[in-house]
Amino acid sequence: MALVPLIEYADATPGVRAVYDDIMATRRVASVNNFWKALAHDPANLKRVWATVKEVMAPGALDPLVKELLYIAVSVTNNCEYCIHSHTAGARAKGMSPAMFDELLAVVALANATNRLANGYRIDVDPQFRDPLA
Amino acid sequence: MALVPLIEYADATPGVRAVYDDIMATRRVASVNNFWKALAHDPANLKRVWATVKEVMAPGALDPLVKELLYIAVSVTNNCEYCIHSHTAGARAKGMSPAMFDELLAVVALANATNRLANGYRIDVDPQFRDPLA
Amino acid sequence: MALVPLIEYADATPGVRAVYDDIMATRRVASVNNFWKALAHDPANLKRVWATVKEVMAPGALDPLVKELLYIAVSVTNNCEYCIHSHTAGARAKGMSPAMFDELLAVVALANATNRLANGYRIDVDPQFRDPLA
Amino acid sequence: MALVPLIEYADATPGVRAVYDDIMATRRVASVNNFWKALAHDPANLKRVWATVKEVMAPGALDPLVKELLYIAVSVTNNCEYCIHSHTAGARAKGMSPAMFDELLAVVALANATNRLANGYRIDVDPQFRDPLA
Amino acid sequence: MALVPLIEYADATPGVRAVYDDIMATRRVASVNNFWKALAHDPANLKRVWATVKEVMAPGALDPLVKELLYIAVSVTNNCEYCIHSHTAGARAKGMSPAMFDELLAVVALANATNRLANGYRIDVDPQFRDPLA
Amino acid sequence: MALVPLIEYADATPGVRAVYDDIMATRRVASVNNFWKALAHDPANLKRVWATVKEVMAPGALDPLVKELLYIAVSVTNNCEYCIHSHTAGARAKGMSPAMFDELLAVVALANATNRLANGYRIDVDPQFRDPLA
Repeated sequence: MALVPLIEYADATPGVRAVYDDIMATRRVASVNNFWKALAHDPANLKRVWATVKEVMAPGALDPLVKELLYIAVSVTNNCEYCIHSHTAGARAKGMSPAMFDELLAVVALANATNRLANGYRIDVDPQFRDPLA
Repeated sequence: MALVPLIEYADATPGVRAVYDDIMATRRVASVNNFWKALAHDPANLKRVWATVKEVMAPGALDPLVKELLYIAVSVTNNCEYCIHSHTAGARAKGMSPAMFDELLAVVALANATNRLANGYRIDVDPQFRDPLA
Repeated sequence: MALVPLIEYADATPGVRAVYDDIMATRRVASVNNFWKALAHDPANLKRVWATVKEVMAPGALDPLVKELLYIAVSVTNNCEYCIHSHTAGARAKGMSPAMFDELLAVVALANATNRLANGYRIDVDPQFRDPLA
Repeated sequence: MALVPLIEYADATPGVRAVYDDIMATRRVASVNNFWKALAHDPANLKRVWATVKEVMAPGALDPLVKELLYIAVSVTNNCEYCIHSHTAGARAKGMSPAMFDELLAVVALANATNRLANGYRIDVDPQFRDPLA
Repeated sequence: MALVPLIEYADATPGVRAVYDDIMATRRVASVNNFWKALAHDPANLKRVWATVKEVMAPGALDPLVKELLYIAVSVTNNCEYCIHSHTAGARAKGMSPAMFDELLAVVALANATNRLANGYRIDVDPQFRDPLA
Repeated sequence: MALVPLIEYADATPGVRAVYDDIMATRRVASVNNFWKALAHDPANLKRVWATVKEVMAPGALDPLVKELLYIAVSVTNNCEYCIHSHTAGARAKGMSPAMFDELLAVVALANATNRLANGYRIDVDPQFRDPLA
């Protein structure tokens, strides 16, 4: 049970409903997830977080499916149960196949392993890797 | 300075050289990174890690650039300096533009934030997110 | 179910009871939490951990409510379910309002995000931030 | 050296300068930190992150100094060198004494320890800790 | 419920069965854990991960019990519920007493605490600690 | 440069000197590390942390070398540079060979990888792993 009550649409203030409406319209879904219903406990944060999610996850230099995969990679590394489930569902809706999910987890596991080898041996960065991106 | 001496090609045993040769051939580069030179301190681990990297990072259901982006996402979340530098270089060599890197970091930052909102509010997973992948 | 049996007061040794008594007296509560009942499996550790908690969480340069808020911030970042629940209860008992909890989570989420932006871009510390505290 | 060039005010676009001006006006400082100069590589992210920082770190149910202390607690737990330095400087400017910093670190260390005891023993949450905040 | 179906021996392909057979023979057990049944969703990864586990966890310079203890230490630090349970069982089968488990958790808690003190105070490494291992 | 001045023996108060003396006597060394010199900024914390380190790291059900190895495993997982260096030196002084260090890092890397596979696939704990330790 969440630490705060979940706010259903019927019980929401107009400001919260406006965010819910925008989430449903943007994602073409008929209701909002528990995540948003919990955040609605703090309407200012709800509004800010949604505005950021809407912008950051929109198509850009990276396509939306790749962004969902990155989201899962972070959530698995941090072990956020809610986020793994919700973004796995989101990624599937955007075309992630089971094989893609398997490969994603294999990369995430490998990266978590080699991160510790590099840190444990205290390996110096090769000079040619230090160039800034233009 | 690394906690173990870096093994240069000239000083390597035949078994280590065979791995170095395979890395250079697979990646079409003229030398190996410090990461491999440090791992060579433990030839069995060098061989295992390279075998896994070679398989996991090869083209598959996900393309190699997406895999590099996932690697960066994990490495930034864990703050592995070596891995951020080496995989950013690897991703650039595979076509990552500066704009893609910026978007990647924006997604990683967002995911790290919402992971904590979901965990902090102890939000229950929506039932529809629990379906297993076929 | 915990990995070790929880030790109830009635079943505790005199040494464990003495710690339980001190916890109950210090906190003005009628029983101890599961955390202490599990730690009692290792009486030396129970005694050490309680001695540290008692000293560190006492009023000092920071007031006890602020210390509870810091505890929650760490526990949310690490996703310790037990600790989030117990320290949220502790903070409420010391005066944390729901609005304070919301703001706390907003700060924790933001910090987790900008930590990754700073690490991902490998931003150098500004020289003026390096001065040691007197 | 950062992975992206730092954008100085003199070289910034009008949109970036507007953010820099707002940072300097809000914080009453004469220049912006490296963090913002690196984020300016991605003006949309710079604008979003600053808007969130400005709102989240403003006085509210928690005072700005407490928010800085929470920021440090998260940054120390994640080991973000840049953020530890910049938010320690920020907290000092808002009144954090050396004794407060010492107590903060003692709480952060303790919480990181007990998080692992609770997780390692797999301690069940006491029922009375599960009540949601109103 | 796992995000992928668990593959039972009766339903497994010959390649997956070969891995299951090797796990059961190596460990002298009559069935494989859920971990392997989930990984079997991706037979290439199953094979790779088992090959690494088999080699890395075998007796060597460190004995197998010490390796299980190290595994628990990492899993507790990362809060991997599955891994804490499975490796605690593994360690007990190899001789870990309850007192050893208690001491392990006390060390893990302490290390997690002092890691944050060292990082929070930004303590410089003593020069004599920088020598590489021969 | 540390965020607080390092307190040398010559400049220390009698209370701090008493802790330094006990560290040097217990460890049979002629001086204390930077870690203790930084903690001395907060004498109460110095005293508490040393008392815990002295007890927890003493011989018990686990021998002191195993405890040092566990310390390194945690510190590598968290990427605490100071702690990796100081506890690697400590472990070497207690008999850790380079081959043992290599195997330790291989186990730590593997555990960090499989932690993410277990979490990412959301694998349920096998019932037989749930038995509490007696």
